[in-house]
Amino acid sequence: MNTVAIIGTGLIGASFGLALKQAGFDGSIIGVSSERALADAVSAGAIDRGASLAEAVSEADLVFLSQTIGRILDTLRHLDPLVRPGALVTDAGSTKTAIVDEARQFLRRCQFLGGHPMAGKEMRGAAAADATLFQDRIWVLTPDEPAELDTAAARNFRHWLERIGARIVILDSEEHDRTVALTSHLAQLASTALASTVADQAGVNSVKVAGSGLTDMTRLALSPYDLWRDILATNTEHIDRALSRYIQKLEHVRENLRTRQLQDEFARAADLAARLRRPI
Amino acid sequence: MNTVAIIGTGLIGASFGLALKQAGFDGSIIGVSSERALADAVSAGAIDRGASLAEAVSEADLVFLSQTIGRILDTLRHLDPLVRPGALVTDAGSTKTAIVDEARQFLRRCQFLGGHPMAGKEMRGAAAADATLFQDRIWVLTPDEPAELDTAAARNFRHWLERIGARIVILDSEEHDRTVALTSHLAQLASTALASTVADQAGVNSVKVAGSGLTDMTRLALSPYDLWRDILATNTEHIDRALSRYIQKLEHVRENLRTRQLQDEFARAADLAARLRRPI
Repeated sequence: MNTVAIIGTGLIGASFGLALKQAGFDGSIIGVSSERALADAVSAGAIDRGASLAEAVSEADLVFLSQTIGRILDTLRHLDPLVRPGALVTDAGSTKTAIVDEARQFLRRCQFLGGHPMAGKEMRGAAAADATLFQDRIWVLTPDEPAELDTAAARNFRHWLERIGARIVILDSEEHDRTVALTSHLAQLASTALASTVADQAGVNSVKVAGSGLTDMTRLALSPYDLWRDILATNTEHIDRALSRYIQKLEHVRENLRTRQLQDEFARAADLAARLRRPI
Repeated sequence: MNTVAIIGTGLIGASFGLALKQAGFDGSIIGVSSERALADAVSAGAIDRGASLAEAVSEADLVFLSQTIGRILDTLRHLDPLVRPGALVTDAGSTKTAIVDEARQFLRRCQFLGGHPMAGKEMRGAAAADATLFQDRIWVLTPDEPAELDTAAARNFRHWLERIGARIVILDSEEHDRTVALTSHLAQLASTALASTVADQAGVNSVKVAGSGLTDMTRLALSPYDLWRDILATNTEHIDRALSRYIQKLEHVRENLRTRQLQDEFARAADLAARLRRPI
């Protein structure tokens, strides 16, 4: 692997560039982004230079799509005539089925392997980039077939993921999307809906007497809609099902406020919460 | 105020004793609790000595009920013949209407003023007691009539609350219970239900790929049922209504996963979340 093209040099893209360099990658890292984002990424030391999409991907052995989901889908539609034959194209999109389907349809001259690094932080942009962002964090890969992991390009990519400290988990894209609907997307919507419900009723007193529990439960609600629009649009069915299960559970809780049934729910919930807190 | 009786020397009761001493109270602090809890409270320096309920409240100017709600209700039924006439009885129960009603029915020889310090921590018991637990935290008082705040005993109590750094908020008990149903009890049940929903579906992968969002959203789910049973039993109607509003909101979110309606909900939620994070 001599040349990496990072398409979208925000927090994730720039952190990937920094992480590669810190792990000893001494090839060339080319960024494709807005002029301002490229300047930030260069000054963060995350990329060597900026270029157009056509120029960057004509040279790259690895093309890393770290844009929003909507833009990844758009890039995939234009990429095939531009890439170097035999290159590996991968991505960092938070939902996988729509992206993997699109890649299957449009990419012919190169290999695609879907990915989702489970890492992030509150701040956005290359200025917040961090070479250790992926250290000890899960990086999901979603091959259609296990053999896709064993091409020379994929082995090389996996080798670098290990070098930057990521923990690779293999899921098919459908299972990925079903799982994150429950563990990530439902959690977001539960937080947003809770904050919005409190806002509907809130007088000054509600805010005054709110304790740290509500503060915890509304941290995710600070996330802006523009980060979520594409996720909700590309994982609607799984999210719909997860919300439906959550609503059923809340109805069950509501019907059992005074019965011992609730003790079972508390025990079940505390057990899961404790499991989430054990090291991976 | 010469003598304070603290009934229930767990985290809240023992912290109140410590806070009074640190604020310069040099009268006598008598605890009423199990033998073991009294030993812990004495060795934490939170009380001077333990005594029976009858002995402690026959001497006290201030009786502070910092037991579970169920035990506070039980104590109120037996207290009246035992208290010193003119004493102020107050409490730290997390719901107020049931307690205030019971006090109105059973207490004749002393004044009752309901209270709810909005403070706590993960650990329980006098060993975790902290003289600064109430510093800059809201302490709700729930008089039936404003005049109840202006008796000599109530003024004296409020003076000591200020000395220990608490910020007094006056609410009627009904408004208190309606407000905390939304800001505290709903948040707890949203967390428990979320963790239980994930537990129902969770394979190994769900736990592996869960991010920090789900960890945040399930911290409250670690709370044991025995802390919540009395709260749920004494605030059922308000909690039922809050759950119903939350379920309606989640249905609205579910119906609008692909529409711009959701943008409004995100904005509304982010605004409330930001308000919760501003200093009181």
